[in-house]
This record gives sequence, C-alpha cells and structure tokens, in this order.
Amino acid sequence: MRELTVDLGERSYPIYIGQGILNNIAGLFERHKLSRKSPLLVITDDEVAPLHLERVMTRLQEGGFAASACVVPAGEPTKSLAQLEGIVTAALEAGLDRSSAIVALGGGVVGDLAGFAAASFMRGIRFVQIPTTILAHDSSVGGKVAVNHPMAKNIIGAFHQPELVLFDIDTLLTLPPRQVKAGLSEVIKHGLIWDADFTQWCDDNADKLLALDPEALSYALYTGCKVKAIVVSQDERENDLRAILNLGHTIGHALEAVAGYGELLHGEAIAIGMVGAAKLAQQFGYADSIHTITKNLFIKYGLPVSIPAHLDTDSIMSAMMYDKKFKEGMMVYIIPTEIGKVEIRKDVTVDQVRGIVEHLKKEG
Amino acid sequence: MRELTVDLGERSYPIYIGQGILNNIAGLFERHKLSRKSPLLVITDDEVAPLHLERVMTRLQEGGFAASACVVPAGEPTKSLAQLEGIVTAALEAGLDRSSAIVALGGGVVGDLAGFAAASFMRGIRFVQIPTTILAHDSSVGGKVAVNHPMAKNIIGAFHQPELVLFDIDTLLTLPPRQVKAGLSEVIKHGLIWDADFTQWCDDNADKLLALDPEALSYALYTGCKVKAIVVSQDERENDLRAILNLGHTIGHALEAVAGYGELLHGEAIAIGMVGAAKLAQQFGYADSIHTITKNLFIKYGLPVSIPAHLDTDSIMSAMMYDKKFKEGMMVYIIPTEIGKVEIRKDVTVDQVRGIVEHLKKEG
Repeated sequence: MRELTVDLGERSYPIYIGQGILNNIAGLFERHKLSRKSPLLVITDDEVAPLHLERVMTRLQEGGFAASACVVPAGEPTKSLAQLEGIVTAALEAGLDRSSAIVALGGGVVGDLAGFAAASFMRGIRFVQIPTTILAHDSSVGGKVAVNHPMAKNIIGAFHQPELVLFDIDTLLTLPPRQVKAGLSEVIKHGLIWDADFTQWCDDNADKLLALDPEALSYALYTGCKVKAIVVSQDERENDLRAILNLGHTIGHALEAVAGYGELLHGEAIAIGMVGAAKLAQQFGYADSIHTITKNLFIKYGLPVSIPAHLDTDSIMSAMMYDKKFKEGMMVYIIPTEIGKVEIRKDVTVDQVRGIVEHLKKEG
Repeated sequence: MRELTVDLGERSYPIYIGQGILNNIAGLFERHKLSRKSPLLVITDDEVAPLHLERVMTRLQEGGFAASACVVPAGEPTKSLAQLEGIVTAALEAGLDRSSAIVALGGGVVGDLAGFAAASFMRGIRFVQIPTTILAHDSSVGGKVAVNHPMAKNIIGAFHQPELVLFDIDTLLTLPPRQVKAGLSEVIKHGLIWDADFTQWCDDNADKLLALDPEALSYALYTGCKVKAIVVSQDERENDLRAILNLGHTIGHALEAVAGYGELLHGEAIAIGMVGAAKLAQQFGYADSIHTITKNLFIKYGLPVSIPAHLDTDSIMSAMMYDKKFKEGMMVYIIPTEIGKVEIRKDVTVDQVRGIVEHLKKEG
C-alpha cells in the first residue's frame, strides 16, 4: 500500500493507494476518526453499485459503522442540482447530522456530485473519496467539487477537501479499455506539467498500464496524485499555480460541451487539448519537439489527437466564452515550455486559439 | 453613518449603517475594491425592485460599474435550488467572471439565496449584502447562506462572508408594520443573549422603534449587528459559541415549517421560541423573571408569545427531528440563564421540549 499526504494545514489528508484496501475500509475510517455514532451516506452510481457497493456496505457494517446508500444514474447529466436535491433527501431520511460523512464511491461524476453535497449539506460535513476509475485520481484529490449548469460545466461548486482518499486498484481491473485510456490521459498530464522523468516512464510503460498491471498502475496513480498534491498544497483555491492543472482543459471542456457530454470522454477531450497547447507553444517560440512528443505519446495510448471534423469551430469557440478560464475579458492559457514544465500565459488571443482549433480539425 | 467591523482575519468586512448611504454605493464599492472591469449582478425580489432597484442601478452605472439585475419572486419558496439555477443562468448571460461580485438587495430570502449563489458560482465569487428589512440585520452578517429543501430549511448552504454590508435606514421606512415587529424580534434576541442594558433600552424605546424613528433604528441595528459580529468573530463556522444565536430557533424553525413558510413570519416564530426557551430555563432552576421579562417584552412589541392552537404538536416535534441542531442523536438547546446571557445545553430531552411546545399552545 502506498500512502501520501495532501499538505493543507488543518485540512491536510492522506491518500491510500493499493490492492484490496477496501477490505480494510472500517479500519481506515476509524484511524481517521470518522464517527460511528453518526450515520454515513455512501453515494455511488448504477454502474459501480453492482460491482462494489455490497462489499463496501458490508465491511462498514462489520466495522460498526451505520451506513446508508444512495445510487444515482451513471453519466455526466447526473452532475445536476436535481441530483443534489435527491442526495439531500437521502441524507435527511438517513438522519445524517453535522458529524456525519458522505462517501463518494465511483468516478469523477460521483465524486464531484457527492463532494458538492458534502460541501453544502448543513453548510458542510465530512467527505471521503473512493475513486473507482483511473480518471478520478485527478478529481478525487484537491477538493474541487461541483455540478453542471445546462450552459456550463462545473460552474456551481465549492472547494471542499475530503478527509481521506482510498484508491483500491482492484476496482480498476474491470474498467473497459476506452475508460482506461481516457483515465491515463490525466495521469500523463501530471507528467507533462511537472515531471519529465515520469513522462518518459509513461512512454516506456504504456503496454503495462494499458494491460492494467497492478504495480505499474499503483505507481502511476501514486505519481499522478503526488503531482496534484504538490500543486494543490501550494494553491488550494486556484489563485495562480493551480491553474497549470488545466493544461489541455480550455479546448477540452469546450469539446466536451459541443460534442455533448459523453460522446467525447473527458480524458479524450483533454488529450486533444494538450496537443493543441503544445501546438500553441510553437507560436510562442518553444521547441517543436514538445508537440511531437506530446502527440506521439497520446497516439501510443490510443487517444485522439485531433478534433472530430463534424464539430463546428464557432460552437467550440463560443462554448469557451462561458468557461471559467477568462478573467476580466482576457484569456488565460496554460502552455508547455518544455516536457515537464508549463507556464500560465495571459496574453493568448481568441484568434490564436481559433487558429489552433482549426489546425486540430485538420491534424493533431 | 455608523460603521463597525466583523473581525475575521483576512475575511474581515465592514458594516455601514445610516440614512441615504445607497446614494454613495459606488464610492463604497470603490473603497472596498470591487472591480469596475468585471460585471456585477444585483439580485433582488419583485417587491423590493420597484422601491430601490432603479436607484441602485443608476448610482452604480454613474459610478462606472457595469451591473445587471436579476429579479426573483418575493417569499420563502424562492430559497430553492431552482432559483439558484436561474441566478446562475443570469450570471452566465451577464458574463460574470471570477473577479465579479453578486449584490443582494433585499431581505433575508434574497440575501441567503444570492449569498449561496455567490458562494457556489465558479466555486465562490465576491458578495455584497444590502439588507432592506430589519430582520436582515441578522442574516446579512455572519456569512451563513443557504437555500431550503422541501424537507428542511437552510439545509443546503455555505459559510461565505460578504465583502461589505450596506444598511440604508431609508429602505426600512416603507416596511409594513408586521414586518417591522417581526424584524425587531431578532434585534431583541441580540440583547437577550448578550447585552442586558440593550434589552432594557429595547424595553424603554419600543415606541420609537415601532414608529421607525431613524436614530433609534440606526442605534438598534448597530447594536444588534455588533453583538452578532462579536459572536461570529469568535466562532465563524458554528462549532460552539455561535450556537447561542439560535436562541428561540429550535422551536421557531419547526413552527415555520409546520405553519407553512409565510403564515408565521420568522421573527414571530422565534419570539414564541424565545418565550419557550425562557420557560425551559425555569425547569433548569433559573429565575422565573427571565420568562416574565421575555414574554412581556415581546407582548410590548406586538409579537406572538404562544403557538397557534391549530398547529399539531406531533408535526412540530417531527419537524424538529430534521433540524440541524441535533448532534449524534442528542438535542442541543440554547436557554437563557439571566437576561443578556444564555448557555448551550446538550442535556435537553425531547420530552422536555414536547412539554414546552404543549405549554406554548396553552399560554406563552
């Protein structure tokens, strides 16, 4: 079992990564002082529930915890205020109090929704993340929780740090291949923004990761979480540094919105976005090799590197206008300056981005 | 103009109280570094809008601020997730960014809803409170913001402190008499929990306050806000001391829920609740005079001191079971120990509370 800490003063918390961790969930909850007197509410979705819910509930009950479950539909549309209201209904019916915790068992959708429920129920109760996808190694660390609005993704949310994050490698072994690839896209991102050695490691170990080798997966998730933890510790509320985590996300979010949530997976959309950012880097005088390496790496992982031709450029651009990465009318953009390093530029024009989008529609 | 500060370290903010201060709203916004580059969104309701919105918008525009307005229906049902979604739509359409602020112009409903919108839009933007009721002197200070769930009041919310609070006495002069009385109930509460001299002053100056004498009103609001500010500074997130602000609220909230939001005004419901808490104090051996003084004071202000006979005791008790003031199954209750002083008791039984509810149905 690997362990690391997200260092945020009194809001610090541990991340545990390893095979079979969920069998000891009650022990870990006890170690981190979750209350046996106050009911827990486990939120999961209807794809994860048949795979993992019974084991989690049983282990909690055996360990003396009172837990109820609330199952939501799988998929991005679940990140809604309507589902939030449903969770609050379940929380009230289960008798949650201010010492209770909400437990997110699932991918990023469940984590974001359950996390925002924990942030806002009774103005904030405790929260545990149990990510069951590779992608969620990213969203489960750092405390950004949110639901979507019909006009914009993640626009209604909070910063609410979990008490702990439990990453059981066993839950990843049944993921469909497309989900695996898309999840690894965020893992690779953590290398690209912070750690050139890890990027090289990802290049060398693509076969193992794609084959879900437990040791390789555990190391990759540990390293991805570590980069995220370092960045978040230095800038919890995204005032500056944390923005680097958004590499590939300006175009990525817009593509998801225009393609319709679900057609293009998040990890796929940001892979295209990261190739775009590398292309933009060329315009600012950085090495052409950044683009080549980035693009080839994603190709090696079976991820898309260009924008599907049927997506309209104007629609993509206007989806971006609602994005959070605009500040006082100026566009903030994360671009790589070398492999393992990025910078936050505030001088990127809308025309430059449009040029990149048009390029990405032709080639990556 | 009176001024005081809510002392919360880097989240400290000023409260301005006086006649005509909205005429200088742009100057005060400038002093407190609200951005002229990022659009503001003013939230108000359809009762307040005809009275004050035009002046506020004009003064802001004259002062160089870009402001849009969003008008919601007046009344407690507006504190809903559906209205929150509507405000987020308006915020996106108005182009709000992370440097924008949401301005609440209205009573507690508008303040709570707009405040939760500010807390959650883009995971938190700045927020200004412009209370236009006496009651809102309470809710506009301290950062507790929330919407209701069909099963429970204020159950979905956040702690989100405003940048500043502007209390223009002029906006209070058109309030209907029932609203005035109900608002003064919270003012009196601040005396009862903290300041015996101010309680005596409220007893001596009832005529002036009920007649909306501007100087008396300004002093009463200043003193009420000061008590609130002291308590909030010591316990921002209601871990202990802040609970004393809930004097009268355990029964009060239940009465509001059972009577249907609106039939019994918040200030009326908590007046009854405070008389009940004083009655409960007798059972713990405190002076009978607390109850007599409390009850007579509310009678002097024309406020109810007993529970309307048609409200069912069982319904009141079960409404309380969903309330936030239960912790690990135990009931937390605020009772007065003398005039100007309260204690937080954790040993109050449900049976004792039921006894008080039954007593309040017969007499105050």
